[in-house]
Order: sequence, then structure tokens, then C-alpha cells
Amino acid sequence: MTRIVTVGAAQLGPIQRAHSRKEVVARLLSLLEQGARHGCDLVVFPELALTTFFPRWFFESQAEIDTFYEAQMPGPETQVLFDTARKLKVGFYLGYAELTQEDGRTRRFNTSILVDQTGVIVGKYRKVHLPGHAEHEPWRQFQHLEKRYFETGNLGFPVFRAFGGIIGMAVCNDRRWPETYRVMGLQGVEMILIGYNTPVHNPPAPEHDNLSHFHNELVMQSGAYQNGTWVIGVGKGGREEGVDQIGNSIIVAPSGEIVGACSTLGDELAIARCDLDLTLSYKNSVFNFAKHREPHAYGMIVERKGAIISV
Amino acid sequence: MTRIVTVGAAQLGPIQRAHSRKEVVARLLSLLEQGARHGCDLVVFPELALTTFFPRWFFESQAEIDTFYEAQMPGPETQVLFDTARKLKVGFYLGYAELTQEDGRTRRFNTSILVDQTGVIVGKYRKVHLPGHAEHEPWRQFQHLEKRYFETGNLGFPVFRAFGGIIGMAVCNDRRWPETYRVMGLQGVEMILIGYNTPVHNPPAPEHDNLSHFHNELVMQSGAYQNGTWVIGVGKGGREEGVDQIGNSIIVAPSGEIVGACSTLGDELAIARCDLDLTLSYKNSVFNFAKHREPHAYGMIVERKGAIISV
Repeated sequence: MTRIVTVGAAQLGPIQRAHSRKEVVARLLSLLEQGARHGCDLVVFPELALTTFFPRWFFESQAEIDTFYEAQMPGPETQVLFDTARKLKVGFYLGYAELTQEDGRTRRFNTSILVDQTGVIVGKYRKVHLPGHAEHEPWRQFQHLEKRYFETGNLGFPVFRAFGGIIGMAVCNDRRWPETYRVMGLQGVEMILIGYNTPVHNPPAPEHDNLSHFHNELVMQSGAYQNGTWVIGVGKGGREEGVDQIGNSIIVAPSGEIVGACSTLGDELAIARCDLDLTLSYKNSVFNFAKHREPHAYGMIVERKGAIISV
Repeated sequence: MTRIVTVGAAQLGPIQRAHSRKEVVARLLSLLEQGARHGCDLVVFPELALTTFFPRWFFESQAEIDTFYEAQMPGPETQVLFDTARKLKVGFYLGYAELTQEDGRTRRFNTSILVDQTGVIVGKYRKVHLPGHAEHEPWRQFQHLEKRYFETGNLGFPVFRAFGGIIGMAVCNDRRWPETYRVMGLQGVEMILIGYNTPVHNPPAPEHDNLSHFHNELVMQSGAYQNGTWVIGVGKGGREEGVDQIGNSIIVAPSGEIVGACSTLGDELAIARCDLDLTLSYKNSVFNFAKHREPHAYGMIVERKGAIISV
């Protein structure tokens, strides 16, 4: 049996601050059309794919910050993506900054949506693992203020029945945490879509900047293998407002093998025919969770947040 | 600051069933002496390092099975390892089949111990993730009856203050589960010692036998990186009673990089000077758990054992 989902990993080159939504959406449309031309069912865009990665700056003015958010999805500038998806019969994953009114207040999340081949939103995820910091830290070469500009996602790690399988989503830093994959694995996930913006340089630990690609691949390859799932990781690449982004977009099979990859730092589409049934030989053997997991020994994973040293 | 622990990964070639404890211990002593000569503080042996990997056979007779277990540690044949450790001032990790009287009954575990440089047992671990099956499955080319011959470990994933740092242990299949590393990571572990017996051929999923080494490395590299810890993985290699074992013993830095490795399938010592302070740049930045983990979203990891599909 085979259940093929043909996926395009639609990497973006840099988006400068001066670039308008309209310019960016034109690039997304071009990649969506390339995907459709190559028979993709699903095209995956990066995190915060409609603007420059704005958490790199400390802004005083909330009004200025809010120019980077979408108050509607689809909105006036993004409706064309949904219309094109429907017309070309190609779905997409899109990351964006979400501004919403919930529980009687304005809330902001680092969000991704899954849109099916009829142009309908069939899944939404809000980033759980916000990296960086909440206060201005002028010593850094650039800021990473996600903990200031977003709330922690409040939707958990949901999965969705779509594209003939069970699809999950994550955003950027989520991918470094094995818990992300496992919570979706425990819901039978077959493909996890992950957009990211990852600078080559990490100000708090510059001593491993040279390992940025290795770490990016390592976490997604192990997450795929250990849960028997496809993982599609799509980044931004190139120098964006003076900050080098890794790109390094990859398509990872349930074996953990990289079976598709972008090789530039610009707008680029990498394609793979992903057989969802390749998940089975892992989910039914070494990673048959029902047979082999031992949750009685995992309590600390939920009982404590930070490490506690008691020896 | 540096806190160097010089570690020897003491891979073993095959141990046939006809080999006596005395013959095997002589090989372990040789590796221990090599380690001492090269300035090792700690030598790591494989899982079930005193006998052939007996769960590959279905035995009817409990008396026959019990010949593979140690009822005492140290025992008459293993005392010399402890004496030599003390004499040479080199500690060791040793995996063995443990037969013990506890709670008024005979119990059997797949156990490892940590012995310090004075020849004293300073830590014990009992394998939590028992792979394989509990009933005879004659269709297999060889059995993997760990679920029959051992109880699930009942000590959790403890860590120990030893060798100037915080040391944890795991055994074989434990290393494929990110929960193993995380529970120790949440106790501040700086070095995890893992012995294994891994056949190249996995009867339930032969379609990825060609990936045995890749998977072995992937899980230990990601476990190391995602917890900012050293991982020392030591296997048996070569054809043991007709079954090819992967060997593939590696020393993994907290970066996830492999910094030492065996290149044969026989008795071999790979050495690395492991600076425990290299863990800090991970534990204090991207994997600062207290800052960045989100346990409220991880509940399923302990609440369910198997995957539940509800979409």
C-alpha cells in the first residue's frame, strides 16, 4: 500500500523590512505555482513568512509592533493565497504573527495554519516553545524578543486529518524539543510541518554557530525516526536585515533520512514524494509505543520544568 | 574552567556461548588495563558484558536460563575487575544479568553498575525499556526475549555524583527513547553511559537493517545535544552465535558531535578526554530548561502509553 503526499518545501530568501506584504505574497504565489506545476499536494512555507523576522528589534511602540501581525486570516493581502490554493488544488502551511481578540483581550501568537487543497483552513497551531528573551538586551548583536512579542501557544500540539493522513505542525524552536514530536506521535502523527527563522549566530552561545545546520538536521531527523513520522522543515535563508539565516530546509523520512533539501539560501522549492505508509514499519516495530513505552518512569518530564540537582 | 573525565569506550567482539566467565573477564581486564595505560578515569563496557547475548534463544529450563545471571556482584569471577579498578585507579560501567532476592521473591533485571576509581559500586541502574517479546516466536531468525527474561527496571533513571560530575546510565534500547535522556537531563546529568547488544538484523523490520548504524548514532547524538550531556555508547560487534552485532561504539560530545569511535567489530578501546564543562553552553542557553521548557503541554507523554488516534 502507498499513500503518497507530494510535498514542496518552499524556502524563502531574506525578507527585508522595506518589503511590502504584496511583494512577499507574490513570492509565495510563485512558489505555490511551482509546487502545483510539479504535482505537489502541499507546499510548506517558513515561520512568520509574511514579513521580516521582527523579533530581532526592540520596539517601544505597540502600534509599530502590530504592523507585523495579521488581524485576519485570510486578510486582504493573503486572500489570493487561498484562492490560488483552491484553483491549483495545492494546500499549504503558512507561518504568521497572529493578532486576535480572545477572552476579552488582544492576544498575539506565533501561529501556523494548514490550508487544504480547497483553500480552507483545516488546522491551526500556536508556537509553544518561544525562544529568546522578554526584555531588551542591548549587548546582543540583534535581539530575539519572541518571549516579549508573543504569548505561549494555548492550543497544545494538535494533529489534523488532512491530505489523506494525520498531519501536525510546529514552529521553529519547537523542533529542538523531543516533547514536541512525542506529543504528536502519541496522536498517531504521520507528517509534521515546521517553519523556522534561525540565525546562524546565537548571541548567548556563539561557540557553536558553526553547528547550526548540524543541529537543525539532528533534531528533525531524530524526531522523525523516534516517532515514525515525516518531518518537513522549511526555513528562511540568506542575509535578512544584516542577520544571516540558515535556510537548510529539509524533508525527512520516517527513517530519519533526509530525502529532499534546498541547496541555496534563497527562494527555492525542494520536492519529495512522501509515502505516509513508510511510517508503519517504525510505528509497528521498534516504536510501537503501546508495547514499548514506559510512562511510569517519565514523571519528571511533566512534574518539573527546570533541572533540579539533588545528588 | 575544565573538568576533564578521560573515558574509554571498551567495545567487545563476540562472546560465544562456549566462552567461560573467566575468559570474558580476562578480555575485560585487558581493556581496563589498556584504559589505565592511556590515562582513562573510566572505562565503559557493553550491556550483558559477561556472557553471550542469551535472549536470542528460547529456553524451557529456568535453571539453564539462570546460568547467564549473576547472583552476586562482585562475585567470585568478577571480583578481580573491582580489585584491578582499585589498583589501577580506573572506574568502570558494566552491564550484566542480575538475579536478586527482593520483596520475598527471585527477580531478574538487565542491570548496569558504575564502579568508581576505588573499586566501589557507586551506582546501579536496571533497564527500563526492554525490547523484543515475551513469547517464543519461531518465525524469527533469532529470538529477542528480553521481555521474558527480565522485569522492567524499578529504579527509574537515577544519576550519581561520581568522577567529578553527575553521571547517569542506560542500557541498549533505552537509548532510542528521548524520555530516557530527558529524565536524566532534568536531574542535571553531564555524562550518560550506555552499553548495548544490537543485531544488524531486526526480524520485525528488516527493511531498515541497512540503517542500524545511522539510527544508533542519531539517537545518542540527539540525546546528547538536547540535554547538553556527554553520551558514551558501547556495543558488542561481530558475529556472535551466528548473529551480526553492530559494534558502532561512539563517544558523543554535548554538541552532538561524535568525538571518539571504534572502527572494528572486535575488542577495541576508543578514548576521549571529556570536559564536563562543555555541557554548560547548552544547559545555560538553548537548553536552559527552566527558561524554555513548557511542561503544561507535555501531559500526554505520561498520560498515555500507546498512540491514540482520535482525528
